[in-house]
Amino acid sequence: MNNFVYDIPTKVYFGENQLGNLGKELSQFGKRVLLTYGGGSIKKIGLYDAVVAEIKKAGLELYELSGIEPNPRIDSVRKGAQMCKDHNIDVLLAVGGGSTIDATKFMAAGACVDHDAWDFLSEKWAPIEKALPIVSILTLSATGSEMDTAAVISNLETTEKIGRMDRELLPRVSFLDPTNTFTVSPYQTACGSADIISHILEVYFNEENDLYMLDCFMEGMLKTVIKYAPVAMREPENYEARANLMWTSSWAINGFITAGKRHAWSCHPMEHELSAFYDITHGLGLAILTPRWMEYCLDESSVDKYVQFATNVFGVEPSQDKMATAKKGIELLAKFFFETLGLKSNFTDVGIKAEDFPEMARKACCGGVIKGFKPLAQADIEKIYEMCL
Amino acid sequence: MNNFVYDIPTKVYFGENQLGNLGKELSQFGKRVLLTYGGGSIKKIGLYDAVVAEIKKAGLELYELSGIEPNPRIDSVRKGAQMCKDHNIDVLLAVGGGSTIDATKFMAAGACVDHDAWDFLSEKWAPIEKALPIVSILTLSATGSEMDTAAVISNLETTEKIGRMDRELLPRVSFLDPTNTFTVSPYQTACGSADIISHILEVYFNEENDLYMLDCFMEGMLKTVIKYAPVAMREPENYEARANLMWTSSWAINGFITAGKRHAWSCHPMEHELSAFYDITHGLGLAILTPRWMEYCLDESSVDKYVQFATNVFGVEPSQDKMATAKKGIELLAKFFFETLGLKSNFTDVGIKAEDFPEMARKACCGGVIKGFKPLAQADIEKIYEMCL
Repeated sequence: MNNFVYDIPTKVYFGENQLGNLGKELSQFGKRVLLTYGGGSIKKIGLYDAVVAEIKKAGLELYELSGIEPNPRIDSVRKGAQMCKDHNIDVLLAVGGGSTIDATKFMAAGACVDHDAWDFLSEKWAPIEKALPIVSILTLSATGSEMDTAAVISNLETTEKIGRMDRELLPRVSFLDPTNTFTVSPYQTACGSADIISHILEVYFNEENDLYMLDCFMEGMLKTVIKYAPVAMREPENYEARANLMWTSSWAINGFITAGKRHAWSCHPMEHELSAFYDITHGLGLAILTPRWMEYCLDESSVDKYVQFATNVFGVEPSQDKMATAKKGIELLAKFFFETLGLKSNFTDVGIKAEDFPEMARKACCGGVIKGFKPLAQADIEKIYEMCL
Repeated sequence: MNNFVYDIPTKVYFGENQLGNLGKELSQFGKRVLLTYGGGSIKKIGLYDAVVAEIKKAGLELYELSGIEPNPRIDSVRKGAQMCKDHNIDVLLAVGGGSTIDATKFMAAGACVDHDAWDFLSEKWAPIEKALPIVSILTLSATGSEMDTAAVISNLETTEKIGRMDRELLPRVSFLDPTNTFTVSPYQTACGSADIISHILEVYFNEENDLYMLDCFMEGMLKTVIKYAPVAMREPENYEARANLMWTSSWAINGFITAGKRHAWSCHPMEHELSAFYDITHGLGLAILTPRWMEYCLDESSVDKYVQFATNVFGVEPSQDKMATAKKGIELLAKFFFETLGLKSNFTDVGIKAEDFPEMARKACCGGVIKGFKPLAQADIEKIYEMCL
């Protein structure tokens, strides 16, 4: 067990009708607000009007940047950073899902430097010494960006999708209202839920022993998503289901469960290459990859953790044959993704071609080795991709 | 499910050898540090010397207040508040268990007002508008004071033991090093563990439906204490056991699991009267009370939650007879407290007398009703006390 520093000061307003606190929270950072959002779904659900009304009521100056893409692009980030400079913005308000919040994080950092924002993500890896304060209003339970230090940005010119974590990028305040996810489609609900599950499993399956308490928490979060994702797909306005998915999405990746581990993301970099090459939905890519990754990493040395997963999460009756129990757990997870959630189960069905595997695999491990649960070099990743065909 | 605001910004350094960060953390608040501690056990384990060395290395001015009692008294608080004023203290550093940290919280608040610190706790209930910053170094896993907004102070003159929660009392930074609890005796480990369990059960058994995710977390924390408390008693230097108990103690009561509930403490006020009248160890009083309180509150309307507890925490095989399953859970909890942890099981054995029940019961509910899991008026509390004889 390693030492860690727990430091997650994001303040969260959880529940319905909490927007009355928005003006007060924004005002503590200054007068000029840059509101960022995506394709306009926030207008359809009335959230845009409600947000603008609160900003006006608080006497703040409003600037807007819309059109942030899924798999958000560096061009949007550049535009936002420039707007912050042009209008001397004090605080950024991201209203949307992980894409909008991620892009906003790098706008906030880009606003504080003279160089191009891509320099934070390219091999230059420019230091993030400061970022403008970020407030978020979440509309999709998935990435956990509302309460974490990470953001992932795509560069279509270089076919790169790169993530970075930095304490400066952590939202100061987030508004989590489950009703803002009522209109999320069954398909997006499924993808978001797969994303949450993947976040947890990438930490759960780890070389190092966990704090047992955190293992229990992870198993609890997995059971929560497995219980409520199908409910939310069937009954989009089920508050209990949406609330459980929402709060779980935040805690799956805010840093709490990784405490004390040397943790290396495995499925996520493999998936980022899928999205970078094919622009597919992140959660869908993860759903296809995760059970194969688990299968590839399973061996005698790791089997006990798989047995724990199968029994504690899926209630599999443990048998003498540990390998069989372990495989049963993987099988039930795959069944959950591809039958219960109805997600496509292989690369062929989503149009991903084997000819790109070598290049995607090379990029996923940056030409080296991902030192995760099982070390993965390019050849390993190619094999996992092949298992997904 | 109710709305809530999640706001727990305490930064935690968890693990061994993290004291190198102490000077830096204290310095952000100023130059003059008041170090508070109890009976001197921190000198025996070498922690005092290590702390003083770090403070000197950082070039800070050190003032000291020792002798803070278990069930800390208002006199100590008054003394500390006065020292803060006399020496123009910038930050308080509490080194110890919940008693030391609790007392330090009200010193920090008392330092910022002209009136007596008891006014915060007496019926005057003076507002806590400001407190000096508090840093803590924990040496006992029990109360969770290291990461929560609460503190409980005794006044022997008035035989009162009163708690209060206030955001201003939250420690800014806490150091949680499991090795600092290696010398905690088996008895104190048992009492601390009973305290943690009681904190969780008082939230778990609640009129309102929880977020399922939080139910899973609570069950995980209960299983963690049940698994590791006996290990820590048998092997006091078992790092894994001490680490699990330590991190669980913080999360049992930092506000995370109460999110979304109207929550009223029930066992705690009943216990506070035991400590106020008899100065017994808080965790011991809770261990005696908790199973009786659970038994008293059990009825047809609440039985399902008890069944959930029995099956998910103790692995009881659910039977057709829900009441029997529910009672089995209570029985196993009592067995854990009184056999596994070896705590005394009744009031008679610890010298608490029936003649004080009416007065203690009246004070516990402040002459009204505790609106918790089951509303408890004076007569109900007297009955629960009688069940403890």
